[in-house]
Amino acid sequence: MNDTIRLLKNHRSIRKFKDVPVTDEQLSHILDAAQMASTSSNMQAYSVIGVTDPDKKALLAEYSRNEFVRDSAIFLVWCADLSRIQLACEMRGGNVNVPGTVEHLLVATVDTALAAQNAAIAAESMGLGIVYIGGIRNRPREVSDLLKLPRLMYPVFGMCVGVPDHQPGIKPRQPRAAVYHENEYSDEGVAEALAEYDETMRRYYLERTGGKRDATWTQEMEAKMRQPGRLHMRQFLHDRGFTLE
Amino acid sequence: MNDTIRLLKNHRSIRKFKDVPVTDEQLSHILDAAQMASTSSNMQAYSVIGVTDPDKKALLAEYSRNEFVRDSAIFLVWCADLSRIQLACEMRGGNVNVPGTVEHLLVATVDTALAAQNAAIAAESMGLGIVYIGGIRNRPREVSDLLKLPRLMYPVFGMCVGVPDHQPGIKPRQPRAAVYHENEYSDEGVAEALAEYDETMRRYYLERTGGKRDATWTQEMEAKMRQPGRLHMRQFLHDRGFTLE
Repeated sequence: MNDTIRLLKNHRSIRKFKDVPVTDEQLSHILDAAQMASTSSNMQAYSVIGVTDPDKKALLAEYSRNEFVRDSAIFLVWCADLSRIQLACEMRGGNVNVPGTVEHLLVATVDTALAAQNAAIAAESMGLGIVYIGGIRNRPREVSDLLKLPRLMYPVFGMCVGVPDHQPGIKPRQPRAAVYHENEYSDEGVAEALAEYDETMRRYYLERTGGKRDATWTQEMEAKMRQPGRLHMRQFLHDRGFTLE
Repeated sequence: MNDTIRLLKNHRSIRKFKDVPVTDEQLSHILDAAQMASTSSNMQAYSVIGVTDPDKKALLAEYSRNEFVRDSAIFLVWCADLSRIQLACEMRGGNVNVPGTVEHLLVATVDTALAAQNAAIAAESMGLGIVYIGGIRNRPREVSDLLKLPRLMYPVFGMCVGVPDHQPGIKPRQPRAAVYHENEYSDEGVAEALAEYDETMRRYYLERTGGKRDATWTQEMEAKMRQPGRLHMRQFLHDRGFTLE
């Protein structure tokens, strides 16, 4: 097993950071790595806002309901961005507009995620810690206003980056049989794999919380589905120019 | 610069493969790495179908209009997957259903992309080559039927994996000023960065094609936006249980 694979297998989300900045050189490597990720038809349909301003980090912590966002050295806000493609159309004469279809939403969201994951790995390879913050979609309008995001751009997730001040255990993942299938999908063995995973997660939570948290994966997922969150996303995206046709 | 960052910066998409299989050990590292990617609220909302069957690869090559899909050692089809979460609800009694909101679509699509990018990096770290194939969304129904994908699962993209049989140049990316912003978005300098990128890409295409392809990025983007593709995605997703509420 090579060092890169060892690194990938060793990921854990970091939520406590030392009061140490990310250097310009580190940030530059992180962004270079991000930019070299694959991108659909070279659309490069994403932008990154790097937030170091303490007042802005405090507001983003509040919006995302994650206090530790304040303590990240830099909070990267990863945005799906079709605004540069709109600008390209304008630079070519302005007869064409970006329609913001469902397909465009997918392309821009995937481009953003691929770039972000490269950034995460680059950061981790330098001993930095990261955690993705989907919570910025709790209040996407406020986030967009705060960061002055233009039309055709939306904040997909944030990412805390900084020097780790704890080392949590690695969270167990589902058995391979739940996730991977050869040549075609089959539900054979999936329920059994999830039942096995439920026991793994119960043990993991009990150990990690000194017996306080007694929960399984299926239980957590049912609870999440019972009260689906962020139902504002559709209208929000529509208002930002994603017609979702 | 460490080896992992060097690897990330050295990415190029591979579209010619030697007739050499990916070993079980390599595939296992690739999938382990994929599974260790971050996942929103531990939803792990993706599945992977590994296609080695030649007839299936041939059909997927046709559907995606990429002949070289046939020649990949293994074609990984990365699927956003809420079906396991639906199964979790059923295992808990079946009173709750996954609504497949826009938020769910985003979560599942992002989870899929993060896992896939870890897989890509793991593969590249072992000397394998990869290319993402968004073209499977040309005919997502046929792909879903071929791979027997259940409801609440959709194929986001494919990924050819194999031993490289060429080494294309690294495709230039947009200047940092187009992509990265400090503390808030500003359009200052973005048009200039794109104009500069247009010249970079013109030179790159001319060199790569021996003078045959004379195109710029803004030109290509305008052409793409003039004829937006895959307008079937919305209805397709809806039919697969993604209500997009």
